[in-house]
Amino acid sequence: MSDSDRVTAAVMIIGDEILSGRTQDTNLRDIARYLGTYGIDLAEARVVPDIEDEIVATLNHLRDRYDYVITTGGIGPTHDDITADSVAKAFGVELYEHPDILAMMQARWQGELNAARRRMARVPVGGDLVKNPVQGPPGFTIGNVFVLAGVPMIMRGMLEDVGPRMRPGKVVIARTVRVEGTGEGAIAAPLETLAKSHPTLSLGSYPFFGDGIYGSNLVIRGRDLAEVEATVDELVAALEGIGAKTVIRVAAETGA
Amino acid sequence: MSDSDRVTAAVMIIGDEILSGRTQDTNLRDIARYLGTYGIDLAEARVVPDIEDEIVATLNHLRDRYDYVITTGGIGPTHDDITADSVAKAFGVELYEHPDILAMMQARWQGELNAARRRMARVPVGGDLVKNPVQGPPGFTIGNVFVLAGVPMIMRGMLEDVGPRMRPGKVVIARTVRVEGTGEGAIAAPLETLAKSHPTLSLGSYPFFGDGIYGSNLVIRGRDLAEVEATVDELVAALEGIGAKTVIRVAAETGA
Repeated sequence: MSDSDRVTAAVMIIGDEILSGRTQDTNLRDIARYLGTYGIDLAEARVVPDIEDEIVATLNHLRDRYDYVITTGGIGPTHDDITADSVAKAFGVELYEHPDILAMMQARWQGELNAARRRMARVPVGGDLVKNPVQGPPGFTIGNVFVLAGVPMIMRGMLEDVGPRMRPGKVVIARTVRVEGTGEGAIAAPLETLAKSHPTLSLGSYPFFGDGIYGSNLVIRGRDLAEVEATVDELVAALEGIGAKTVIRVAAETGA
Repeated sequence: MSDSDRVTAAVMIIGDEILSGRTQDTNLRDIARYLGTYGIDLAEARVVPDIEDEIVATLNHLRDRYDYVITTGGIGPTHDDITADSVAKAFGVELYEHPDILAMMQARWQGELNAARRRMARVPVGGDLVKNPVQGPPGFTIGNVFVLAGVPMIMRGMLEDVGPRMRPGKVVIARTVRVEGTGEGAIAAPLETLAKSHPTLSLGSYPFFGDGIYGSNLVIRGRDLAEVEATVDELVAALEGIGAKTVIRVAAETGA
């Protein structure tokens, strides 16, 4: 899928809690699937610790290399929430207290709007807000970077305000052919032949085991529906040709 | 936790299926927790696509920067399994068919040991095997890099042969204090004071919401048990000092 008009994104997950194994990240998958509906390819993801230099260097690399970068985590009120500071530093700009966020917080907190909470009103100069329909202050965007919360429920809410601001790509069509009772080793050769004859498609083989069943999900992905569907037919014929036992065309899906 | 004798590792997850959102990765968390039991800090993680140049460049960066690198995925028999080729290229060595794997495969497959399956017997020159107690061929290690399967059950099995080959670090002790009914904004100030007075500890605040309860899990992590436990006492006293409603010392844990 080496389209010249491919739109790319990277995800940067910020948080010691992911690297310590305390928390199971689910944001990456949610973002990947969401971007898929806009035809945007997630090209790379990184998990970085709560260390400013690491965040700054990684962000500057990713925003230079990809069309968009989405970050998650580190935008709360506590001392370990250093994402806004790090993003401002990466862009070489200052942070300021955004009047809309301050007004929102003053209405919510009144006399309890302390210094820690005010930290969450800070946005880099030149940035814009990302709506938070769930709870608490908004995220923000600057340049090609979108800065979202780490709490999954809030992250997903914020994401709804991200896609419409991106240049959409052509959506990837994915079809899965499930082979049961025949291992990857037996189907690798016809699969490779097919992959070589369709260089603009991506063909993946994802084996499964357990519950007395084994086999592989063969996933064909591409941006040309007719080519994808024709390749599914070719694949099924090739699998039947080598005597694969159970070949199932899984219901059509889009994206992932 | 800036110990001079800190032992570090990075994880490189190889696979289009993670970046497309098709598959929810769980290997990162399992590896992080496993490394924690050996006192090894997971310092960074990356998810890269099935593209040789990306894998080679990322691996060379990570193996130069950290004590160890663990990769997952891409070691099966199909055309999209390019990890062994990429690792060999990164180290500037050739692949050869390892006699022990070939013997194992010949016993298993006999006349059906085709070219695709033989691909899984390939190991970089200078590499050594990583036992696979679950199913299929082993992983391998070369230099400071460990190359494991992507299927979680198999990955976890292989991991058991990785830790004993690593130089262990001093295990991190983690203690959690759970605050309910008081938000992060109210506790940020005493938490920051505590963090500043204990620069060798890591203090994280992880808010939670939902089911009518809100609050935060405050996690204190460090390698000196006495300091960690004394800091828990200080934290509980500080939280009670600001009138936090419900402060719970969560049962002791190690690592994550």
